[in-house]
Amino acid sequence: MHLVTGGAGFIGSHLVDSLVAKGNSVRVLDNFSSGREEFLQHHKGKGKVEIFKADLLDLESVKKAMKGIDTVHHLAANPDIRLGTEITDTDLKQGTMATYNVLEAMRLNDVKRISFSSSSAIYGEANIMPTPETYGPILPISLYGASKLASEALISSWCGTFGGEAWIHRFANIVGPRGTHGVIFDFIHKLKNNPNRLEVLGNGLQEKSYMSAGDCVRAMIHLIDYSKENVSLYNLGTGDTCSVRRIAEIVVEESGLKNVSIEYTGGDRGWAGDVPKTSLDVERLFATKFVPTMQSEDAIRYTVKELIKEIGL
Amino acid sequence: MHLVTGGAGFIGSHLVDSLVAKGNSVRVLDNFSSGREEFLQHHKGKGKVEIFKADLLDLESVKKAMKGIDTVHHLAANPDIRLGTEITDTDLKQGTMATYNVLEAMRLNDVKRISFSSSSAIYGEANIMPTPETYGPILPISLYGASKLASEALISSWCGTFGGEAWIHRFANIVGPRGTHGVIFDFIHKLKNNPNRLEVLGNGLQEKSYMSAGDCVRAMIHLIDYSKENVSLYNLGTGDTCSVRRIAEIVVEESGLKNVSIEYTGGDRGWAGDVPKTSLDVERLFATKFVPTMQSEDAIRYTVKELIKEIGL
Repeated sequence: MHLVTGGAGFIGSHLVDSLVAKGNSVRVLDNFSSGREEFLQHHKGKGKVEIFKADLLDLESVKKAMKGIDTVHHLAANPDIRLGTEITDTDLKQGTMATYNVLEAMRLNDVKRISFSSSSAIYGEANIMPTPETYGPILPISLYGASKLASEALISSWCGTFGGEAWIHRFANIVGPRGTHGVIFDFIHKLKNNPNRLEVLGNGLQEKSYMSAGDCVRAMIHLIDYSKENVSLYNLGTGDTCSVRRIAEIVVEESGLKNVSIEYTGGDRGWAGDVPKTSLDVERLFATKFVPTMQSEDAIRYTVKELIKEIGL
Repeated sequence: MHLVTGGAGFIGSHLVDSLVAKGNSVRVLDNFSSGREEFLQHHKGKGKVEIFKADLLDLESVKKAMKGIDTVHHLAANPDIRLGTEITDTDLKQGTMATYNVLEAMRLNDVKRISFSSSSAIYGEANIMPTPETYGPILPISLYGASKLASEALISSWCGTFGGEAWIHRFANIVGPRGTHGVIFDFIHKLKNNPNRLEVLGNGLQEKSYMSAGDCVRAMIHLIDYSKENVSLYNLGTGDTCSVRRIAEIVVEESGLKNVSIEYTGGDRGWAGDVPKTSLDVERLFATKFVPTMQSEDAIRYTVKELIKEIGL
C-alpha cells in the first residue's frame, strides 16, 4: 500500500488519483489544514483510498499510519512560502520536523521507499540558469526553501545510515485544478473582490518555471519506476518559464472582465524571500523519455480556466 | 562583543583564544555537555571572556545571551557523528533546531553577522574529489551531515529573508589539543585501556582531510575579515588527506608502546554513515592568501602528542 502525506492537498490529491488509476491502494495522511475532503470525494466507497486524519508532528500517529506501507509519497508541507516572513517556525515544524517524523516512523516500521516533493525554491538566487541538479552551493533565500533542502538532507542521510531508496523531486511551480494557494489562486480571488483592479506584488517581471499538476504527478510516478539509484534526484519542470506579468494578463483575458487595471507594487520581488527568476534545467528528466503535455503558459491558462470554475468570478 | 556558541568545547575554546588574542571581548554560550570549564580557565579574571551557561534549545536563554552581540560564531553541535546511528533526533535537535534558535534570537535582537561551522560531512560520498564548494547535488549520508546542511540552509534563508551577513565554513576533520572526540581521542583511550591491542573500526583505508584546530580558527577569522559576500561559503582544510591506518601507526609510534597489535574490524567504513573517503578542494580558501601551518599528517602527529599529554598513557 502507498502512503501519501498531504494526500488531501493540491498536488497530493492529484497523485492519489494517478496512483489509484494505476490500480494501487492508497492511504492518505493529512491534517486537513489546507487539504480538503472534497478533493478526494470521488474515491469514496470504492475501497481504494483510506483516509487517516493526523498531524505529522504527532509521531505516534505517523507510526500508526505507516503500518503495512510499502512506499511513502511525502508531500505534506506548509503551502504558503510567504508565511515564513512573519512566523519563522512554520517551515521548520511543518517541513523539517515533519519529514524527520515521517523518516523515523518509516525506520521503526521497516518501510524502505520514499518519494519526496522538494522545490526549486532551494536554489535561491542561482547564478546558473537554467539551473541543473548539480548546481552548488545551494543557498536558499526563503525559509520554505531551507526546509525543503533540510528535508532532502534528512532523507539522503536516512538512506545512507539505515538503508532504503529515495526519489527527490525538485518541483517547478506546480499549477492546476484544486490549487489552494499561489499566484493564480491569489489573482482570481483579487478579481473576485474587485473586478476593476488587479494588484500584482513586485514589478511583474518575476519569471519562473511552471508545470501542470497532472504532468507533475505523472513525472513522479514515472521516475519511481524508471530510476533505481539509491537516491534519485531530479528537477521536475517543462523547460520554459513565464512571467508574473503574463500570468496577470492571462487571468484577465480568461476572466472575461473588460475594465481591469493591472497595477504593480514595484520592486523585483513579491516579498522578502521571493526569488525574482527561477529556471529549472530539466534535461535529466527529459533524458528519461518523460514528455510533459503542457508547457508553462499552457499549464497556466488551463489552470486559470479551472480555478475560475472552482472559485467563481 | 562576540558570541561563541559551544565556546567551551574543542574548536570553540580555540576560537575564543584567537578572538581574545586579537583584542575582542567574548561571551561563551555553552551547556557544558561536552565543553569543559578548564578549556577556558586561562581567561579567568582577565575581563575578556564571559561565560553564559545555557542550552541552545532554550530559546529564552539564547535571546538573553544575544544582548549586545555584534557577531555570532555558532559552533555548538553534537560532536559525535556516530551517535546518529542509535539516537536519531540528537542532530535534529542539537544541530538544526539549535541553529534555528540562534537565528531567531539574532533576528529578535537585530544581530546581523553569523559565522558557522559546517562540515565536509555534508558532501556524503561525493563523486568528485577533491570536492569543491560548488559540488552538487549534496547528499549527506550521516544524520550529523544532514543537520549541518539544514543549518547552512537556515542561515542562508535568514540572510535572504531578514538581511544579514553569513560565513559558512565547511570543515575538514579538525584535530588538536582539547579534542573531546574523534579517531585520535578514541585510539589513545583504547591504548590506555589495553596497551597491547588497538582496534580500528573498518579496514583502516578510510581517508580524510585533516586540519589543526589552530589553523581552523585562524582561517575562520581570516575569512570574516576577507570575504564580504552576503553569504561566504568556503571549504576549510589543508589540501591533502591521511588514512585511518596511518593515524593508528602514528598513535602507536608516539605512544612509545612496543607490543601493540593493530587490528581492523574490516569493511570500508567504521560505522553506518561513515564516509570512506573525503577530500576537500581548498583552492578557494588558498586564493584568499590563507596558508595553513600544518598539513594533515603534521596536524595529526602534533595532536597525538598533545592528547597523550592530556589523557595520559
